[in-house]
Amino acid sequence: MARKAARKTAGRSAAKKRTVGGKHQAKTKIKAKAKARTKASAKAPARSKPALAAARDEKTLANPALIEVTRGEMVESRHRVAVAVVDASGKLVESWGDIERPIYGRSAVKPLQALPLLETGAADNFALGEPEIALACSSHNGEPQHTDRVRHWLARIGCEVSDLECGAHLPLHEPTMLQLIANGGDVTAIYNNCSGKHSGFLTTARHEGEPTRGYIRFEHPVQQRVTKAMSEMTGVDLARAPRGIDGCGIPVLGMPLRAMAHGLAKMADPRRLSADRAAACKRIVAAIMAWPALLGGTGRFGSTVMAMLKGRFVLKGGAEGVYAGILPSLGLGVAIKADDGGGRAAEAAMAQTLRRLKLISAAEAKPLADLLMPPVLNRAHLEVGRIRSTGEGRF
Amino acid sequence: MARKAARKTAGRSAAKKRTVGGKHQAKTKIKAKAKARTKASAKAPARSKPALAAARDEKTLANPALIEVTRGEMVESRHRVAVAVVDASGKLVESWGDIERPIYGRSAVKPLQALPLLETGAADNFALGEPEIALACSSHNGEPQHTDRVRHWLARIGCEVSDLECGAHLPLHEPTMLQLIANGGDVTAIYNNCSGKHSGFLTTARHEGEPTRGYIRFEHPVQQRVTKAMSEMTGVDLARAPRGIDGCGIPVLGMPLRAMAHGLAKMADPRRLSADRAAACKRIVAAIMAWPALLGGTGRFGSTVMAMLKGRFVLKGGAEGVYAGILPSLGLGVAIKADDGGGRAAEAAMAQTLRRLKLISAAEAKPLADLLMPPVLNRAHLEVGRIRSTGEGRF
Repeated sequence: MARKAARKTAGRSAAKKRTVGGKHQAKTKIKAKAKARTKASAKAPARSKPALAAARDEKTLANPALIEVTRGEMVESRHRVAVAVVDASGKLVESWGDIERPIYGRSAVKPLQALPLLETGAADNFALGEPEIALACSSHNGEPQHTDRVRHWLARIGCEVSDLECGAHLPLHEPTMLQLIANGGDVTAIYNNCSGKHSGFLTTARHEGEPTRGYIRFEHPVQQRVTKAMSEMTGVDLARAPRGIDGCGIPVLGMPLRAMAHGLAKMADPRRLSADRAAACKRIVAAIMAWPALLGGTGRFGSTVMAMLKGRFVLKGGAEGVYAGILPSLGLGVAIKADDGGGRAAEAAMAQTLRRLKLISAAEAKPLADLLMPPVLNRAHLEVGRIRSTGEGRF
Repeated sequence: MARKAARKTAGRSAAKKRTVGGKHQAKTKIKAKAKARTKASAKAPARSKPALAAARDEKTLANPALIEVTRGEMVESRHRVAVAVVDASGKLVESWGDIERPIYGRSAVKPLQALPLLETGAADNFALGEPEIALACSSHNGEPQHTDRVRHWLARIGCEVSDLECGAHLPLHEPTMLQLIANGGDVTAIYNNCSGKHSGFLTTARHEGEPTRGYIRFEHPVQQRVTKAMSEMTGVDLARAPRGIDGCGIPVLGMPLRAMAHGLAKMADPRRLSADRAAACKRIVAAIMAWPALLGGTGRFGSTVMAMLKGRFVLKGGAEGVYAGILPSLGLGVAIKADDGGGRAAEAAMAQTLRRLKLISAAEAKPLADLLMPPVLNRAHLEVGRIRSTGEGRF
């Protein structure tokens, strides 16, 4: 049994360096050979030459180096970051760097992607509670608090773990991962950090009487509803936006950082939205704020800061250095992208933005210092540096 | 037994995001609380204000965005990288970006750090072979091919695994890691990717009759010899350089990227060095080229490319986006640093540099494409993008 788990994930280390955003589909066998890595049965959509060219023209634009990583007496590494803070009317409140260049929102836009789950009536039809709504917006650790709930939820809509099309990977939460391997358990899609979001997708398909198979494809009604809701919220026609495939298989759609922040701001301050949409936004924000540990989990930046300052804001990260903030008390949305995809930079930039917006006071920041300016530890757990603001860009 | 391994590494996930360069000391218990992360019994050396200030002044300098990561129809992330190509006389052959700014060479300078092992006569005294010399320069995967040899080596010098002061972490090679956990094995310092380098340090201490305890400290004769040899090779007085602590506890010493490349060039072309040093350089380079799998391991970029083009060059990476190349056929050294610490960018920049220097021909590059321009895979192992050259900087 123990060997079973080991065999199932064999070969992952060869591939994982190439998998942006983390661990791999542990149920699929991969050959160790580099060659095998391209044996892709479904490649990313053919690249549109003009889109790539446009992105290239802009690559020389220098976003400010907002975050630096020290080690002993030197700054060892630097991260360039763009930040957009926008209100519900679309007014830019503050910004750093190029906020018009299209970015992929990745998992940071999950709260926006959850709108159809509520607006179709699917959530109420299946009597989903706040925990399920929070999980639909989560990139979770795969802890029992997450997977037990997702398992029950799937049963409630008449689905199986095998209906999840997000792929499998080892739980992000290490004690859970070690326990699973030590017990010889199967590494299934339930542990995928996106299994809650995908359960939400399956729920709307079930509610609408649509085939569940292929729900991750852009053309499927599930993704069409998500694209429509996100287009309305961000003011961008995402059906025509540059497109790619996310780590979990669903479409990613390019939008300016400013537009992403606008969509988040409307969730923070939904007064100008239709009654139905406003209600859906409020329920999503309330569910996440009530269940911050379900959004990520033990030790995660967003979950920890949200839990410590409960009810103050929604923080949601994504792969490749993206971070989202929904700030109801200020009626603002925050969207962050680190040029290089560094998650540590996106977290630190979000922490600094919250400080700057006075959503974390100086008194509160002190005990939170190790979250807001995290220490760099060596393998003996000694502090050898810090991840911190450079002071550039008025941060 | 299984639970033992699980317990020992419990809490790692909370800390790992803060640990630059990877996994943690699995034998030490860490509290999940953020607070506990700063409980450092030995902090990094007090920061020298001027050094930090100088680094800050330079942060606005824009290194070229040499590497980009695509996803579908867009470029998703970009990495700024500096590259220095230098000959043994110190002449700059090619460069991109700021090569005068001090950087830490991290594990990429391990071949330079191994010089005293040979020059003191310690290697011959203990009859070390090429595999041990390669391991002394390695950041290995913790596979049996690495750990079995390190274990025998330690026994040969009368040391135990507990004499290693590098800290413990789970093996980087995932099948080995899963096997270890499934079997309930102890996660000890033998699996630390630096255990070969540290065995080399212990070997010189034993040979010189010095106390082994504290061999990782800057003041210990072991590190003093390393500092002296590296100063001579790079032409930088490293005893006075900005200093920090590496992931494995030894000192890291700041030097310009250009100086690091110069030191590597002297290893590639040691004709102007003393006979003893030239002989040591040749043995180190020959050992690594003969045993590329021991330098890293299965699936690792450097090991794989070296094995495929055997005898052509030495490639050695380090944490925070550093990469070293020793090119005997051209008599050149290459030093690379990604501004943001991204390892994927350093690897891709090294691949492009080797192509540009014609050490990998167009015909050879084709079958190596997935190593030189790696695909980005999602969790279902579909190719969704590429890590590649931007074309900027004549790359």
